[in-house]
This record gives sequence, structure tokens and C-alpha cells, in this order.
Amino acid sequence: MNTQIAVLGGGSWGTALSKLLSENNNKVKVWIRDERHCRELSDDRINKKYLPNVKIPQDIVFTTDINEAVKNAGVILIVTPTQVVRNTLKQIKGEYKNDKIVINASKGIEVGTLNRVSEIVSQETRNCKFAVLTGPSHAEEVGLSMPTAITVACEDKVTGELIQDLFMSTYFRVYTNGDVIGAELGGALKNIIALGAGISDGVGYGDNAKAALMNRGIVEIARLGVALGADIHTFSGLSGIGDLIVTCTSLHSRNRSAGYLIGQGYTKDEAVKKVGMVVEGISTTYAAYDLAKNLNIDMPIVDAMYDILENNADVKDTVNKLMIREKKDEKL
Amino acid sequence: MNTQIAVLGGGSWGTALSKLLSENNNKVKVWIRDERHCRELSDDRINKKYLPNVKIPQDIVFTTDINEAVKNAGVILIVTPTQVVRNTLKQIKGEYKNDKIVINASKGIEVGTLNRVSEIVSQETRNCKFAVLTGPSHAEEVGLSMPTAITVACEDKVTGELIQDLFMSTYFRVYTNGDVIGAELGGALKNIIALGAGISDGVGYGDNAKAALMNRGIVEIARLGVALGADIHTFSGLSGIGDLIVTCTSLHSRNRSAGYLIGQGYTKDEAVKKVGMVVEGISTTYAAYDLAKNLNIDMPIVDAMYDILENNADVKDTVNKLMIREKKDEKL
Repeated sequence: MNTQIAVLGGGSWGTALSKLLSENNNKVKVWIRDERHCRELSDDRINKKYLPNVKIPQDIVFTTDINEAVKNAGVILIVTPTQVVRNTLKQIKGEYKNDKIVINASKGIEVGTLNRVSEIVSQETRNCKFAVLTGPSHAEEVGLSMPTAITVACEDKVTGELIQDLFMSTYFRVYTNGDVIGAELGGALKNIIALGAGISDGVGYGDNAKAALMNRGIVEIARLGVALGADIHTFSGLSGIGDLIVTCTSLHSRNRSAGYLIGQGYTKDEAVKKVGMVVEGISTTYAAYDLAKNLNIDMPIVDAMYDILENNADVKDTVNKLMIREKKDEKL
Repeated sequence: MNTQIAVLGGGSWGTALSKLLSENNNKVKVWIRDERHCRELSDDRINKKYLPNVKIPQDIVFTTDINEAVKNAGVILIVTPTQVVRNTLKQIKGEYKNDKIVINASKGIEVGTLNRVSEIVSQETRNCKFAVLTGPSHAEEVGLSMPTAITVACEDKVTGELIQDLFMSTYFRVYTNGDVIGAELGGALKNIIALGAGISDGVGYGDNAKAALMNRGIVEIARLGVALGADIHTFSGLSGIGDLIVTCTSLHSRNRSAGYLIGQGYTKDEAVKKVGMVVEGISTTYAAYDLAKNLNIDMPIVDAMYDILENNADVKDTVNKLMIREKKDEKL
């Protein structure tokens, strides 16, 4: 393809995607914030901290100068944590971040503003085409060239297909999708259900409860998503239930781990402290709770989660209330 | 509720559902084919072979006389294996199997005829209202009163709601759904994907591949289902992806186990022999393959599975072909 691509962020996902893009004959420059980490990546060709089993191709260039990374690039791939996307983009000079294709591969909603990354990008850049790359994809497996299928959502069909071509390989199958809002919301809101799945496991419930939670969880996430402008079918796809399946069955998910502790009787603050990392599912639960109230949308699982997180409600009592509430048709 | 219910079959699922129905104050008579098994259940109040950890309520009656079980019942609950449903119904006198509510809780398609159980019931009974009870539900967990959510699909709304009332409890939440065909097909065809998930695990692929297979598998099952008269949304529900999640993550699924062996290089016959039980996913793959060809429906995963099962195609080569085929939009 020979496209010049700037990758912002060198965590596990940034490293795995850079390797893939380089294998597909693109010119990849990766911006790394930390000078020492940058030097290690460049010298050792291995990401010891985040992706230790993967050899990084020689032709990938690493730099701590973000403007150097993006200036000649036609495509910017964002792989920083969602909460630093805005500040990262602010560091780029105006002339280097206009008229580009910007692909976001980080998941989440900005705390405070409740902005999706597409909204942040439209506020912080000019005349860019935006896409989101999302779906069930552990970075470790992509780094090891294990089969993966993923969605690229872009409102512009031609740009979506161009991005599909950039990434597609024998082990990485990319599907286009026109619904950016749905793909972004699925990736962010699924963390609520992952947290809930952890709680369910932690309190000692079984596979039936977890499958029901995942299935009915996606139903109410889709209900919120549609009210926010998404297409309902996106939530049945790779960026919705597909991603949720990987997250809920992974033992490495921070959201699931924090939930497990809450299920075992810890408060949310104790659980976060024990996990030792940001647990996005908690702030996302609060955001979804507020949005649902504002938009007058029925989200019984989110309500239950809020009650557990905010009011330390007993998990078994709360599930009991969920089970015996008004009888329903599955599709209403 | 005080409804008289005949339960046909005393495996793990029949036992768990009988207990639930009895707890809900229904009068339950269970027909057991085998005389010794019947006596054990009746005397010991425990199903040693199929559900050893669950105490059976005293007021459940067991009988080997199927006509005795059904004659005064308003509701017949079928929990035999799908392949013996027709012969079981043939044993009931005409006057005892007409004008009833018949609920099927077994999953699968009749080999040879390719009939769904609703079709068998309409051929073998007269003037009955049919419903199917299906969803993510390990019998062991229901027997232990662990939270479970499930679908009852019935074309007649009032009957569907009546059945919802029969089963609903603090640990068993029942959703109605008007789409019988979709609910039946989801329950049967999901075994193809469970077999495929086993193959993926067996060959050494990871979570990404399995999530992609489950997600894209349901997409093509839904495509076939719609051609056969189902509603596409049913496949995103408890009887579709919900049930698939439980089956693919369970270590006890025969389909998954057989697939695992095939992934490790055994032929399908060797795998079936090693598993030692019927592996429905294999015959269902052949049935779906034929149906897809007849109806001219694109089912790349089923084609790949057929190629592996019938032609001993190499799994990695076959997955490779799946990955690099024509680029697609997720929703087409």
C-alpha cells in the first residue's frame, strides 16, 4: 500500500497494529510519549512492557516528536487511552492535523464532556475523515498473527474501504460499517456489562446468568445507542456483542476483575484500589445512568449496577429485583 | 398456578424444569421410558445419573405409562431428545394429545426429514398450541435455582404469556417472543458454531478467532433463518447468540469437545467415537449446507465446516481461505 501512517501510542494495541500495517507495506512512524520507552522500542525491536512476545519489524520508526510523526502522514491512527486523546491532538500543529484520515482504535468516552472520540477529533482537527477500528481483538493475539475479525466504521464508504485495504491481511479480516456512533458506543458501553459479568461471577452465579446479562445487556445498550443516533444492528455485530464476548470471557479484563471483587463484597473504591488501574466500566456506568435518565430510556441492568456501585446495594437482592420485575416480550 | 403438566423425559433438563414447575404450584407428572430409572426417581427423589445435586420435590409423580402422564394434563412439556420426539408422540392416544398446549424444550432438527419439532408436533397431534422454550440454560444451574433468563416462543400471544406465568420465578425469568421458527432454528443451528468453536480452540487459535466465529456464525445462521421464515432479530436474542455464548464457553458441550478433537487432527468419525455420544453439530452442518445450496444462500463458515468434515480439509488452510475472501461490509 505504501501509505505513510502515524501511529499515536505504543502500548500493546499500538504495537500490534503498527506491525500489521508495516507487514502490509505501509510506512509507519510511531509516536511514543516517554523518551526511554521510545529508545527501547527503537533499539530492541521489542515492546518488553506491553507486548513482550512480538518482534517489531525493522522499518517501523519510533519518535517522541509528535509533529515529526504526523507531518507527512496521510493517516493518523490513535491508540492512546481515550482520556488523553484531546491533549495528544492539541500537541499537533494545525497544518499537520488537517485534511487527514484519522482512525481511532481506543475505546471509551471522555470523562466530564461525555464526548465520543469522533467528537473530540472533530473539535481538535479540521477537515479530517474519521473512522473507528473496533471489535473482538486482544492485542497479544494480533501481535502473534492469530486470526481476528474487526470492524472499521466510517461514514464515508470510499474512505472506509481504503482503511479496510490498509489493514486487511491473511490473519486480520476487516469489515466496513457505516455506523460510527454505534461502533463507538458499543466499544465504550460494553465495559459496563464486563463489570457486571465480573460481579455475577464474583457472587457465585453461573454461565446462565452471565449469558443472560450479556444478551440483555446488549439489548439495553442498543436502546440507548439508538436514542443517541446509532443503528440497532451494529450492536449485534463485531463491535457490539462480538467485542463483549471477548471481554467477558477474558480473565485479563480489568473491568471483569473489578466486578469480581465487588461481587465478593468489596466496595467499588476497594475494588479499584486492588485492581490498581482505571476501571472504565465504573465511570461508564455512571455516564450511561445519567444519559438514560435524561433521555427517559429503560435500562434495568444499568440501574441495578448503579445501585450496587453508588449505594452498596446487596448484589443478590438487586439481581432478585431484576428477575421478578414486570414480565416482558423479548423484542420490546 | 395449579396447572396439570405432563413432562415427557427425565434427563437433566426434564428434571430441572419439573422441579421449577412444581415449585410454582403446578401438578407435575413425569413420563420416564425406563422402568428402573422411573422407580429410582420416584423412590430416591434424586436423579443420580443426570442431575445428582438436586432434590426432587415430593409431589412430582413419575410414571412409565405415557398415557397416564398426559391424559388429564392441559400442558405437555417435551424434553426427550429431538430424534425420538415423533415416536414418543406416536405412543400417546389421539384423545390425550389433542387440544393441548405443547411446549418443546429439546433442541435440534429431525434427521432425515429436516423437520423442526413444531412441524413434528403439528403432524403427530391435533389442534394443539405449540411453543418452544429455549435459551442459555445449563440444567445443572436451573436445578440449583441459579439465575437464568430464557425465551418462550409462541405464535399465539395469550398462550405465550400463559406459559411465561407457568415458568417464571425468582431465579427463572421468561421472555415471550412471537417467532417460533427463529427460536427453533437458533437452538439447532448453534451447534454448528459450537463445533466450529471447538475446532478453533483445538487448532490453537485464540479468543479473537472464537469471538469472530460466533459473531459471524450467527450472521449467516440468521441469513438462512430469514430465508426459512424467521425474524432476523431472534438470532440476536436469548435463543440465538445468548444460547451460543453458553454453549461455546462450556467445557461440557459435546459439540465443542468433538470440534476440539477435529481441530487437533482427528477425523470426524474418530472424534465422534472418542466423544462417545451423538454430536448434533455434525449432522446439522450437513443439513445447513444442503439447505444453503438449495436456497442459494451464502454461508462461508458452514461451507468451511463442511469441507473440514466431509473432505478432511486442513483447518488452517480453510481458515486462511475464509480470511482472505472477498472484502465485505458488516451488514451485507
